[in-house]
Amino acid sequence: MSLKSLPITLHLNPDQDAEQKLLEIEKIITDELQDLDSKHSISNNQDKIIVWTSKNCNVTVMISYYSSKQLFSINCEMLEDYVLFRSNSIGDRLKKRLNFLLNANQEDSVEVIPMLKRDNPVPLYFLSSDYRIFQYDFEEVLVNENSPFQNIKILKSPTLGNCLLLDDLQNLAEADLPYTHGLMNYGSTNFKDKEILILGGGDGALLNELLKESPKFVTMIDIDEKVMLYCREYLRKACANVLDNFETEHYKIIVGDCIEYMQNYIASNRQFDIIFNDLTDIPISSEEKRDIIVDDNQKLWAFVKKILEFSLELLHPGGLYFNHAIGINCKQSLQEYENVLREIKKFQIEFSSHSRFVPSFLENWVFYQIKKIS
Amino acid sequence: MSLKSLPITLHLNPDQDAEQKLLEIEKIITDELQDLDSKHSISNNQDKIIVWTSKNCNVTVMISYYSSKQLFSINCEMLEDYVLFRSNSIGDRLKKRLNFLLNANQEDSVEVIPMLKRDNPVPLYFLSSDYRIFQYDFEEVLVNENSPFQNIKILKSPTLGNCLLLDDLQNLAEADLPYTHGLMNYGSTNFKDKEILILGGGDGALLNELLKESPKFVTMIDIDEKVMLYCREYLRKACANVLDNFETEHYKIIVGDCIEYMQNYIASNRQFDIIFNDLTDIPISSEEKRDIIVDDNQKLWAFVKKILEFSLELLHPGGLYFNHAIGINCKQSLQEYENVLREIKKFQIEFSSHSRFVPSFLENWVFYQIKKIS
Repeated sequence: MSLKSLPITLHLNPDQDAEQKLLEIEKIITDELQDLDSKHSISNNQDKIIVWTSKNCNVTVMISYYSSKQLFSINCEMLEDYVLFRSNSIGDRLKKRLNFLLNANQEDSVEVIPMLKRDNPVPLYFLSSDYRIFQYDFEEVLVNENSPFQNIKILKSPTLGNCLLLDDLQNLAEADLPYTHGLMNYGSTNFKDKEILILGGGDGALLNELLKESPKFVTMIDIDEKVMLYCREYLRKACANVLDNFETEHYKIIVGDCIEYMQNYIASNRQFDIIFNDLTDIPISSEEKRDIIVDDNQKLWAFVKKILEFSLELLHPGGLYFNHAIGINCKQSLQEYENVLREIKKFQIEFSSHSRFVPSFLENWVFYQIKKIS
Repeated sequence: MSLKSLPITLHLNPDQDAEQKLLEIEKIITDELQDLDSKHSISNNQDKIIVWTSKNCNVTVMISYYSSKQLFSINCEMLEDYVLFRSNSIGDRLKKRLNFLLNANQEDSVEVIPMLKRDNPVPLYFLSSDYRIFQYDFEEVLVNENSPFQNIKILKSPTLGNCLLLDDLQNLAEADLPYTHGLMNYGSTNFKDKEILILGGGDGALLNELLKESPKFVTMIDIDEKVMLYCREYLRKACANVLDNFETEHYKIIVGDCIEYMQNYIASNRQFDIIFNDLTDIPISSEEKRDIIVDDNQKLWAFVKKILEFSLELLHPGGLYFNHAIGINCKQSLQEYENVLREIKKFQIEFSSHSRFVPSFLENWVFYQIKKIS
């Protein structure tokens, strides 16, 4: 990368004079970050913005004072040829001096976000399901391509192995056996001689693990052939050789829309013992998001319900429906999913859930097992 | 929190005109981020900085063009009363439009770091041992105090339990049994009837787990009584009741400097079967850091060597020295530690290592077992 950012936030105490503190903050910043020799001031009502730059243009600092919150925001930007660029200790030094400036006795009135690496040749920053930022150790882009359905990335990590991302959401890494075993409720479920349907599952990991359990036959329907072709090349530690052939005596992989196929199966009275939903996550519907994309959420929940109802239709009585849900911190989404399950009237069901830590998600993921009683 | 930041980075293609693209970028930014109605321009040689603000001062954007790298940096800052503040989708929309602007056919020429939450009442952003940023789900500050030795924080997490941080480094969470078992090489080591010494270990988790293995006696020396007093209150899922009493028939906890005590033990020919080093991490000495703090690193390595040599002195032949090291990505540090081990001449030793994923570290941590042959 060629740019780093260091965002700092601090509050004035009510008795402190903003003008005076701003001058003192500028003194500390220009002291610690060398070469800042050109100052530009912008006033906006009570608010102030100061931009400091260097003649050789390798470091820029914007100090903003938001009077309504008595809040200072300091953004330091450094190019790679800036001498202090390499050290994380700038942040610590600035934090110490700014803390002292504001109030010698109070700890942590200054917040320093650790130095951000910008302009990375490989994307490094991704979100958890509850919108927390994680910086990954990805070191190479193996695939970055748009299929007709989604953006497909496969990124190489020294700790996770190769990692599949669909529309920049972590999907499955070679180290993610806990995901696949979580979805299977491994150890508590008997797959021997079972007729199984997988919805989605294009990375091939679930199919690969299931075939080790001697099922009668597995049908898998995934819409995106490109995902499967890339996974069979780059995610072999997860899918082994199951994506090398799309049809054998033990399984069949169909490239298509699972909704259509399920409708046809229902029309022809085909039944399964076990159905896996390895499609997209359940909708995130925290209040935060709700304000903005309530329509999208409703569409997503309608999709979740449709898949669930079709699946229950297709199961033998006593059959099992397995679904991964979302991260354990998305309590509201989990609650809403359970409400969906409780509202099912056409079939009698019972359900349970458990969670496992999934390495590439960096969070505990929740899995549901739903049994069709009748 | 009351402030969010969205940092965006993009490169010009060599044939693109910076002035023209800057205008188009401004158009997209002012389109998508409402209320930006006041523009301020700064020129610095070939470089340009544009600051856009709103009259009501709740959103500020700084667009910097670094001509030497043909690089644009865009920093959007939003206060909590800004209407678009809540949505993560601003970043996606800006990414799509800016990508299209630069080159309709090229994916990901625009890097958008996910929205940063600033000014958090509980600190959320911490680094891995290889300087990657992780955003935690901490929701309450239980302790934030300076002892004579370090800053002590205990933060509450719904997924990790209470988590001890010393000088803002993740130390141990209630969910971190894998750390303690990793350090013990649990399952491969017999602690029964052994005379054991713990250096550090103030959180009490190691002592608690060891006592379950029926050792002969455990002596623990930690310099910071405050850490132990807070852990016995807030980390009880890790330390149970072992910090309630500092001396029983099974163990003794000494508040003091382990170097001094080890010197006295050596002078009086006291010996142990097993010694745990549960002190600080081994030094991080990647080339990145080295340029800046080579002196500190040398001091830290000297400390690591001294603890190791004293410990080997204090072990019976056949005795074991257990040490946690650092994250598995810090390859150079691990290499240097193994070099230190190989350079030991006074004793004949053999060593091995393994790693375990530690929940609160969000990375695989490396542990060493060193056997004193003679």
